[in-house]
Amino acid sequence: MILDKITSSEIKNLTIPKLYQLAREIRREIIDTVITNGGHLSGNLGVVELTIALHYVFDFPKDKLIFDVGHQCYTHKLLTGRYERFKTLRKKDGISGFPKKSESKYDVFDSGHSGNSASVGLGLARARDLAGEKFEVISLVGDASLTTGMCLEALNDAGANPTKQIVILNDNNMSIAGNVGAVSASLTKLRTKSTYKRIKRKLVSIVSKHVKGPETISKFKRVKNSFKYMLMRGVFFEEFGLKYLGPIDGHNFKELIEYLTLAKNETESIVLHVITRKGKGCVEAEENPGKYHGISPLINSGIKAKSYSDIFGETLTELAEKDEKIVAVTAAMRDGTGLTRFAKEHRDRFFDVGIAEEHAVTMSAGLALGGYKPYFAVYSSFLQRGYDQLIEDVALQGLPVRICVDRSGIVGSDGETHQGIYDNGYLNTIPDLTILTPCGKDALKEALIWSKDYDKPLIIKYPRGACEPQNKVRFIPYKWCHLIDADSKIVILSVGASMSAEAEKAAFILAEKGIQTDVVCVNCIKPLDKELLLSLKNKTVVTIEDNVEDGGFGSVVNDFFCKNRIKTDLHILALKNTFVTHATVNETLEANGLSAKNIAEYVKNIIN
Amino acid sequence: MILDKITSSEIKNLTIPKLYQLAREIRREIIDTVITNGGHLSGNLGVVELTIALHYVFDFPKDKLIFDVGHQCYTHKLLTGRYERFKTLRKKDGISGFPKKSESKYDVFDSGHSGNSASVGLGLARARDLAGEKFEVISLVGDASLTTGMCLEALNDAGANPTKQIVILNDNNMSIAGNVGAVSASLTKLRTKSTYKRIKRKLVSIVSKHVKGPETISKFKRVKNSFKYMLMRGVFFEEFGLKYLGPIDGHNFKELIEYLTLAKNETESIVLHVITRKGKGCVEAEENPGKYHGISPLINSGIKAKSYSDIFGETLTELAEKDEKIVAVTAAMRDGTGLTRFAKEHRDRFFDVGIAEEHAVTMSAGLALGGYKPYFAVYSSFLQRGYDQLIEDVALQGLPVRICVDRSGIVGSDGETHQGIYDNGYLNTIPDLTILTPCGKDALKEALIWSKDYDKPLIIKYPRGACEPQNKVRFIPYKWCHLIDADSKIVILSVGASMSAEAEKAAFILAEKGIQTDVVCVNCIKPLDKELLLSLKNKTVVTIEDNVEDGGFGSVVNDFFCKNRIKTDLHILALKNTFVTHATVNETLEANGLSAKNIAEYVKNIIN
Repeated sequence: MILDKITSSEIKNLTIPKLYQLAREIRREIIDTVITNGGHLSGNLGVVELTIALHYVFDFPKDKLIFDVGHQCYTHKLLTGRYERFKTLRKKDGISGFPKKSESKYDVFDSGHSGNSASVGLGLARARDLAGEKFEVISLVGDASLTTGMCLEALNDAGANPTKQIVILNDNNMSIAGNVGAVSASLTKLRTKSTYKRIKRKLVSIVSKHVKGPETISKFKRVKNSFKYMLMRGVFFEEFGLKYLGPIDGHNFKELIEYLTLAKNETESIVLHVITRKGKGCVEAEENPGKYHGISPLINSGIKAKSYSDIFGETLTELAEKDEKIVAVTAAMRDGTGLTRFAKEHRDRFFDVGIAEEHAVTMSAGLALGGYKPYFAVYSSFLQRGYDQLIEDVALQGLPVRICVDRSGIVGSDGETHQGIYDNGYLNTIPDLTILTPCGKDALKEALIWSKDYDKPLIIKYPRGACEPQNKVRFIPYKWCHLIDADSKIVILSVGASMSAEAEKAAFILAEKGIQTDVVCVNCIKPLDKELLLSLKNKTVVTIEDNVEDGGFGSVVNDFFCKNRIKTDLHILALKNTFVTHATVNETLEANGLSAKNIAEYVKNIIN
Repeated sequence: MILDKITSSEIKNLTIPKLYQLAREIRREIIDTVITNGGHLSGNLGVVELTIALHYVFDFPKDKLIFDVGHQCYTHKLLTGRYERFKTLRKKDGISGFPKKSESKYDVFDSGHSGNSASVGLGLARARDLAGEKFEVISLVGDASLTTGMCLEALNDAGANPTKQIVILNDNNMSIAGNVGAVSASLTKLRTKSTYKRIKRKLVSIVSKHVKGPETISKFKRVKNSFKYMLMRGVFFEEFGLKYLGPIDGHNFKELIEYLTLAKNETESIVLHVITRKGKGCVEAEENPGKYHGISPLINSGIKAKSYSDIFGETLTELAEKDEKIVAVTAAMRDGTGLTRFAKEHRDRFFDVGIAEEHAVTMSAGLALGGYKPYFAVYSSFLQRGYDQLIEDVALQGLPVRICVDRSGIVGSDGETHQGIYDNGYLNTIPDLTILTPCGKDALKEALIWSKDYDKPLIIKYPRGACEPQNKVRFIPYKWCHLIDADSKIVILSVGASMSAEAEKAAFILAEKGIQTDVVCVNCIKPLDKELLLSLKNKTVVTIEDNVEDGGFGSVVNDFFCKNRIKTDLHILALKNTFVTHATVNETLEANGLSAKNIAEYVKNIIN
């Protein structure tokens, strides 16, 4: 076995056959670990050879490797001193599923969201040149990330400038599920011709045959498309002023090493186009890479409970059968947001715009402007990308765009970059928004039904994961409702599905100790249910939300009491204003004082 | 005179000479009005013929014209029933300097920020096709907006799909001041060859001469660059799957009408490349379009007081002389953010990335990663575009990027889309940020000096416009300071430069009425000055900020009191959670209860 003792610098000493052996060992390790711990499978299996070859050619950590998104970093972690701890992947206090500066000097940047690696790389390369230092900066970009606005912004900036940077386009023709858009089509054209050399040979013969004399132009038209393959090989990048090399086989060490060395020796910025196969080496994952993109631990999986995403997708699909004005929008998250069935049954009303949240928000505004009822389903942490558009192009316009904010709250093992814990704050700040937080699967369904005839900007938030079974709250517009009405002096205001479930459990724990509490389900954080709040005068009020405290629900409730001179004994339970690392959802809630047990404990303490 | 009675539909009946006459009349009207009221001059003078031609060829409001940014809509407004009211441009209760749906059915979308028109257009066109309606959707995009990430996202989505949309690239080779990046260079290549027909003629002759027989390839290399002009005419757009037509002369009615008609009759999405000249028809503006981009009323301008942007730019330029690690970043706002001198004196440490706030934030993170001290100067409302990057790529990484947030607070005549009134809320929500709000020009300077050795993510906010002369507060890190210490039971906590000035004036008004108040300058809203807050027990506390109330300074102070069980009589003065329309800064403060007079009145009322 090579893997258990190899270091990054020793890879250079391996022969090609040994490199292939190392790749096999790494694949086995990744598959074993991901099956047990959950994690990103297909993507990581696709870049095993590429990552090994990068360590072969470059001198890390002197040279800097920046991952885009970052969930394809497992091979890199195994090669940089984290083999021993790899079994703790994505576990509480274990190694992260994403690059982390705090884990290793080989990790340059804590990645997580798409499309930022070329920007980081360019900044780092500029700093290097200003300081007169010598090292290579390599940004690894997936083909789906390439269509992200900020990545295109970075290419535009990079191409116009002399600072050298290596951009490796890891092209597996997939984002999380299928690739969309014109840039993708353009890459497909490049891919279909296999390697550059073969394209070139073919075109030379075409050119010799067709382009001869004065008839040039008319004949030229006929060969134009083929001709373009040569002239426009990588023209997309050339338009951005970047040299292009490829496409090359991302599973062939000889080719990888040869081309990576070329890129290293180049003096100008260069894009190296590497073709990889998602799921490579694992039959199931190769055949169904979407399904095996991110997987839950296989060992514990019994019958799968429905998730809030499922409820959303099902309900919207059914609503769309009767209401032909309903359209759905996603930014490369069809499956993740539960829209698979909608996409199939209402194909012409389904728009996957690629990893492009900015455009998705504003394109939805355009659909609303044209009289349609757009539902843009997006993860909370990715909606951050469309924040300006939400303010300017939706809220300010007063357009009835429905933003369905999935994975709001704690997300678990994906960790810091994926937590949906800022949205109460950043959404509360926007004028003229209505923000629904349905407290359970039935309420979510009812909120969706209600939303189809709502004619103003609307947010509907719900958490990641399986629906809480116990929580059967109804949704009444703008009204909060009592889950437990004990006419108590202690009232728990719980926001959304996860927190209502915890609050209910907390109330049961307290009841066993003889402490009665009211539990109110907050189905809507904007506008507030003023009538209910006014009724809380002189009571002990505990607000509970799985969001950071600043600007959150507790905060606006506190402001309401302050403004209306309502005296209460208010306690705000929320996440502290810090980043929250990976662990299971329950572990995270427990560690942050938001589990049922924590809540019960807190309430017990304040009444003593 | 034609202008005073023409309507959009009557333009079709005018002869070409009459169209030129109309253009002259419009130019005179725009110049006269902007000189008096202030506004955007160069850009509007550049699109007079283009806008008239659009009204000539298309049937508005049935067809839909969507402006990008929107400050070039003056001709459109003059042609759509707003000639009479044009003298009220940008005045309180007058017509806006940007398109406004509420003003006219000819205004499709309330524009303001760059790069969104292609997204709006695509959504609207998709809605049209779904509904089986027939009309044209025309998105007008400036060449600088084209490099905005979301615009590229929209082109990617548009090109891959059959929905027809007309994108007019209004190419004046300028964003607000000069254009940057590779896309810009690419457009320059197209422009330098004047019109398509001339390029084509020339290339046909080159091709005939050079490309003859078996030596094709070697000779081909030599003509490749010229050859490319034909093959790659508009190739940037072709790569996005969009048809391209142009470049055409944007001041020639015959050519404009001919090509716009072609675009109208086309069945597929098309990009029409129109070359215009900023400031056309006004010698001063043509020669110095940057200076005349947005101008203040010329009539009242005496000796110009220094603005906060000036203080920022001067201070940073001077600091950079002694500290070679200081670098400055702007997103196409060199002059507006006060960086003109920095760009000249420290050319290699100045990075203008184009209208690309997402990339700007993350590229700055890369510079910090490389050991440099980046200062990204950006308007508050445009930083909204980099919100996700600020969370994920700066705050989470703990990198010492300094974001200098200009035009925080009320901006005046630019209105809704440019107000910097959400930043207290959206920034407070982000963990591990320090947010400075220096209360005057001296404090701003001192904060900047202090910031250069601060090693964590940092925000420094300051308002638009001339520095308040009276306010001479010092900056002490993390400490608020008394501007007036009367040992009063009433304490005003005023955030930042504008509000501290108003609070001080309010205190003088109150003092004349025999009411003594303390005025505290809040130089830093995160972290809070806990010691000072704890000292306010049992006092009447009034917080003042020119930001929306939700999640703002008053709100976090209220939470602090709540959490620490400090009893005070707290009053939060802030903007209500609504959009704020155009008017002067003073008018806006007055209308929203934040002027010195308002504040004095409020305090008088609460103590009575």
